[in-house]
Amino acid sequence: MKKIGLVDTTFARYDMAADAIDEIKKTTTGVKIIRVTVPGIKDLPVACKKLIEEEGCVACMAFGMPGPDPKDKVTAQVASTGLVQAQLMTNTHILEVFVHEDEAEGKALAKLSDNRSREHAQNLLRMLFAPEKMTKRAGTGQREGFSDAGPVK
Amino acid sequence: MKKIGLVDTTFARYDMAADAIDEIKKTTTGVKIIRVTVPGIKDLPVACKKLIEEEGCVACMAFGMPGPDPKDKVTAQVASTGLVQAQLMTNTHILEVFVHEDEAEGKALAKLSDNRSREHAQNLLRMLFAPEKMTKRAGTGQREGFSDAGPVK
Amino acid sequence: MKKIGLVDTTFARYDMAADAIDEIKKTTTGVKIIRVTVPGIKDLPVACKKLIEEEGCVACMAFGMPGPDPKDKVTAQVASTGLVQAQLMTNTHILEVFVHEDEAEGKALAKLSDNRSREHAQNLLRMLFAPEKMTKRAGTGQREGFSDAGPVK
Amino acid sequence: MKKIGLVDTTFARYDMAADAIDEIKKTTTGVKIIRVTVPGIKDLPVACKKLIEEEGCVACMAFGMPGPDPKDKVTAQVASTGLVQAQLMTNTHILEVFVHEDEAEGKALAKLSDNRSREHAQNLLRMLFAPEKMTKRAGTGQREGFSDAGPVK
Amino acid sequence: MKKIGLVDTTFARYDMAADAIDEIKKTTTGVKIIRVTVPGIKDLPVACKKLIEEEGCVACMAFGMPGPDPKDKVTAQVASTGLVQAQLMTNTHILEVFVHEDEAEGKALAKLSDNRSREHAQNLLRMLFAPEKMTKRAGTGQREGFSDAGPVK
Repeated sequence: MKKIGLVDTTFARYDMAADAIDEIKKTTTGVKIIRVTVPGIKDLPVACKKLIEEEGCVACMAFGMPGPDPKDKVTAQVASTGLVQAQLMTNTHILEVFVHEDEAEGKALAKLSDNRSREHAQNLLRMLFAPEKMTKRAGTGQREGFSDAGPVK
Repeated sequence: MKKIGLVDTTFARYDMAADAIDEIKKTTTGVKIIRVTVPGIKDLPVACKKLIEEEGCVACMAFGMPGPDPKDKVTAQVASTGLVQAQLMTNTHILEVFVHEDEAEGKALAKLSDNRSREHAQNLLRMLFAPEKMTKRAGTGQREGFSDAGPVK
Repeated sequence: MKKIGLVDTTFARYDMAADAIDEIKKTTTGVKIIRVTVPGIKDLPVACKKLIEEEGCVACMAFGMPGPDPKDKVTAQVASTGLVQAQLMTNTHILEVFVHEDEAEGKALAKLSDNRSREHAQNLLRMLFAPEKMTKRAGTGQREGFSDAGPVK
Repeated sequence: MKKIGLVDTTFARYDMAADAIDEIKKTTTGVKIIRVTVPGIKDLPVACKKLIEEEGCVACMAFGMPGPDPKDKVTAQVASTGLVQAQLMTNTHILEVFVHEDEAEGKALAKLSDNRSREHAQNLLRMLFAPEKMTKRAGTGQREGFSDAGPVK
Repeated sequence: MKKIGLVDTTFARYDMAADAIDEIKKTTTGVKIIRVTVPGIKDLPVACKKLIEEEGCVACMAFGMPGPDPKDKVTAQVASTGLVQAQLMTNTHILEVFVHEDEAEGKALAKLSDNRSREHAQNLLRMLFAPEKMTKRAGTGQREGFSDAGPVK
């Protein structure tokens, strides 16, 4: 059974990993989920890499909620750069599922987080089990968590 | 037969890889194309690296359409940095074919995407099969997708 | 006995490592602390990596106080990028404990530094000895040094 | 005979490599030049690395002309970061010879490109064959392509 | 005898390495200094790495004077990122001694450069021969080249 790693943070203000776990379990019984929680988004890259190299995960999801300050935006860039690097060092996909705290407020932020987590969970399952379904969606303006932008006309 | 890897995204609002495939097939029968689709541009680097190291591709094209927000611009920088790193780790060229969503609108955006994809496909073929043709164009102000800027006078 | 590495700077205007050492010693007798001091935050990544690879530390904390100028903000980004990279090269967590000098003034800056150091020390101990306690706090909006933001409602 | 790699782009609007080749040949018969042309500056790092590792070049020059848009400035940063990384991976110097398109206009841009290319070609030859001449110039405010700034007084 | 590597640039407008050499020689006879000069700050990382790996230096100092333009500020970030990376690849400290050209003018710039170089030379010697003296200064707001900021009160 393939292992999938889910890493999230205590900094985030919504439990995105829980939604992703729910979505994955609803969709398939064919994967085992390993979940780890770290303080903030800069701790995600190494946590994912350890799940891949030490626990045998074949793919990861990295959940985070960058704050609204300029300082937080830099943190998000550092974390994203690290997640790309972790992927290159392991030849393994890590889907970054970030919801910026200033993308929405209150309930809308929770709903956005829920939707984005679930849609990226579906992306991950497609990438692992049905990559041809990803290519069918190529260039179609998918937007995880929001309405899709759709193709240009 | 040389294998070329093409990686694109579901986030993009135009199917650039399709144009590149068409252009390559019109030009040569000497390559085999392997295509993979990922969610967004930050997923491109590892997908290209896997095509090179696991599928034997001798070159890749990475298609993406960064959005217009400041957040999207940072994402583009992270993705580009990862693509350069993937190339350095594999000693293999990966042509980045990005069309920023705010470079044009509607039909003009589609046309720009089409042109840039085809012109970069020709670049890739020249680099693989006729590198001396690249050097003939050195310093001539080529602009993929737009009119060429031309040399300074 | 597990070894933990603590690295701090002479540039910082508050002795955060001392608080972290106090907090760790109050909480557990089960770790050995190795402390090293470097001039500034850009010297932290290699100092941590050396503690991990040459001294056998299983985790590190990196304390720093970036200054208020734009130049200092870039320095913070460079240092953070290096800390993420050091973690990826060693598969070992390094908690970055940075207090920006412009987050508060005078006594409030000292208090913030004290609190953040202690709360991250607790994070480190949880990660090493009780990771399930981290997951209980996932998505709850923890803020080290300030009041917690809490989950969105 | 030592091999030097020269890599330039079709994007640039001036043939800087030609000037560098002329300058090198005027100065010495002791090196062999290998030239490769790529589409844009983000393609330079891997092209240089291949010349070093696959062709045995002991040093490289990387010529490029970043455009004037904010997007182009980010591209320049990505390319420079990659060039530094390529050097670190090979323990080999790659001199970055970039002329930003907005540094000058028309003929002045061509002249600046010519001068900078030639002066950096001389730097490369000094570094390879007479490093003590570099140290004689240490701290003297050299400016390739423009009048030297000179030492502070 | 321990070897220390000093790398500086021809771009800088003050000979900082000379001051550092003077300071080191005044303080100790226990080290051998190897000095190399490169054109600009982006050439520093690989020059330091070569001194460490090919010449056996146990620590380096990298001197540079970034210019005042936005373009120069990006260059400084690229150089700093490379210096951190070089350290991580070698497990060896490289002290970055940068004086931005816009930190002061004329004689004050020269004086600042002199002071910063000497104070960082002392840092390096402490790190190599008396690391406990670094920890005594932890959190005390040291500022190389300027008056110390001191600890917060």
